[in-house]
Amino acid sequence: MTHFDIAYEGKAKQLLIIDGDPEHYVQRFKDDATAFNGEKSAKFRGKGVLNCAISSFIFEKLEAAGVCTHYVEQQNPIDMLVRKLEIIPLEVVVRNVVAGNLGRRTGLAAGSAVEPPIVETYYKNDALGDPLFADTHIEMLGLVDAANLARIKETAFQVNTILGPIFAEAGIRLADFKIEFGIDAGGRAILGDEISPDTCRLWDMETGESFDKDVFRYDRGDLIKAYQEIARRLELSLPVEV
Amino acid sequence: MTHFDIAYEGKAKQLLIIDGDPEHYVQRFKDDATAFNGEKSAKFRGKGVLNCAISSFIFEKLEAAGVCTHYVEQQNPIDMLVRKLEIIPLEVVVRNVVAGNLGRRTGLAAGSAVEPPIVETYYKNDALGDPLFADTHIEMLGLVDAANLARIKETAFQVNTILGPIFAEAGIRLADFKIEFGIDAGGRAILGDEISPDTCRLWDMETGESFDKDVFRYDRGDLIKAYQEIARRLELSLPVEV
Repeated sequence: MTHFDIAYEGKAKQLLIIDGDPEHYVQRFKDDATAFNGEKSAKFRGKGVLNCAISSFIFEKLEAAGVCTHYVEQQNPIDMLVRKLEIIPLEVVVRNVVAGNLGRRTGLAAGSAVEPPIVETYYKNDALGDPLFADTHIEMLGLVDAANLARIKETAFQVNTILGPIFAEAGIRLADFKIEFGIDAGGRAILGDEISPDTCRLWDMETGESFDKDVFRYDRGDLIKAYQEIARRLELSLPVEV
Repeated sequence: MTHFDIAYEGKAKQLLIIDGDPEHYVQRFKDDATAFNGEKSAKFRGKGVLNCAISSFIFEKLEAAGVCTHYVEQQNPIDMLVRKLEIIPLEVVVRNVVAGNLGRRTGLAAGSAVEPPIVETYYKNDALGDPLFADTHIEMLGLVDAANLARIKETAFQVNTILGPIFAEAGIRLADFKIEFGIDAGGRAILGDEISPDTCRLWDMETGESFDKDVFRYDRGDLIKAYQEIARRLELSLPVEV
């Protein structure tokens, strides 16, 4: 594999500089998994391949539905060519079901429907524990301007509307998901990062079984089998065997 | 003192039912102080008298400036006659300076100015630890309708604009404060509760010394002396000696 310099090393991905192409990065999917703000971590052989395939599939669906994303193409089993964006340090969460910290925050029962869905914003800052931000905190810290914040929220709902039925057809409930955005060369907030079982809660429609990172978070079984199940149900043909 | 039935027992106040007057309560100020969600508590003889006097003074200033509040009149050293409101379980915080959890949430240095000021909303729920809420959580739980939420935020800024100069003239910096609202008979959100050194951060303009509940929270000295200093600087004549 070609050598690249690393522009950014994340917990589960790298962004790699492409010589002579200042407008793109290679987004490489690693086999590492972390949870609880890095307190728990492990390596799962094949996770990078699975997430790269699933995320590429989802970005292609979103692009086809008119959502602007950083996705250009999948280049090999673990590499995705993406447009370079200026990072916005927000984790944007869309919730269709009460899970995770939403139950602890509101007192609502885990598993109950969030109808209509909601969008939340968290400050992407490990040292601070990714705290919830209201619009006023985003504005105060100048994380993104008001027009782009509105665009981000609108896009988040749009992504939910597009992905919900795609997963539902595969017998999967999209309980919630986290997305990230960046500013493109034109100053617009564009969907970046990944969308995969690392960043979504994906539940079997019938049994409620998790096929996502909660398997790792709460030691519920074999993470690779869970991610393979998502790939299988979405009818993806993986470029290599995992 | 007349006997009343207690409609609501709070940490620092009681709301008392008035026989034959369903439209009002007596709001009685207690000598109790609590902090850190009730983990720390103590009694300070004279605190009720001081907070009743300071809060009455502030409500009168706000009413004179056109803010609708539940305040009717001070009846005796610890009792305030107030209009009955239906409680909205929100703590509305206005911040002019980074202090308390805002520093921990944002990473901004404690003591730095918040310019322009911000309004935050917290879910008033001891069991959940009064968590920060974004508008979407307020809407989701139906705590208050959108029109009244807008009115609440506007009123919060207005209160800040009115009280800032009053305290500044007394050599005190209004760093932040917490207010609460309730719905009146006409369905409007009205300022309720109290505004006192229990609910404000009040700092000496020159030295930065606290004259508020932080004295109790962080064991910084004599709470009663601090509250007396606020009363003295606001030139209040207390109805009894404390």
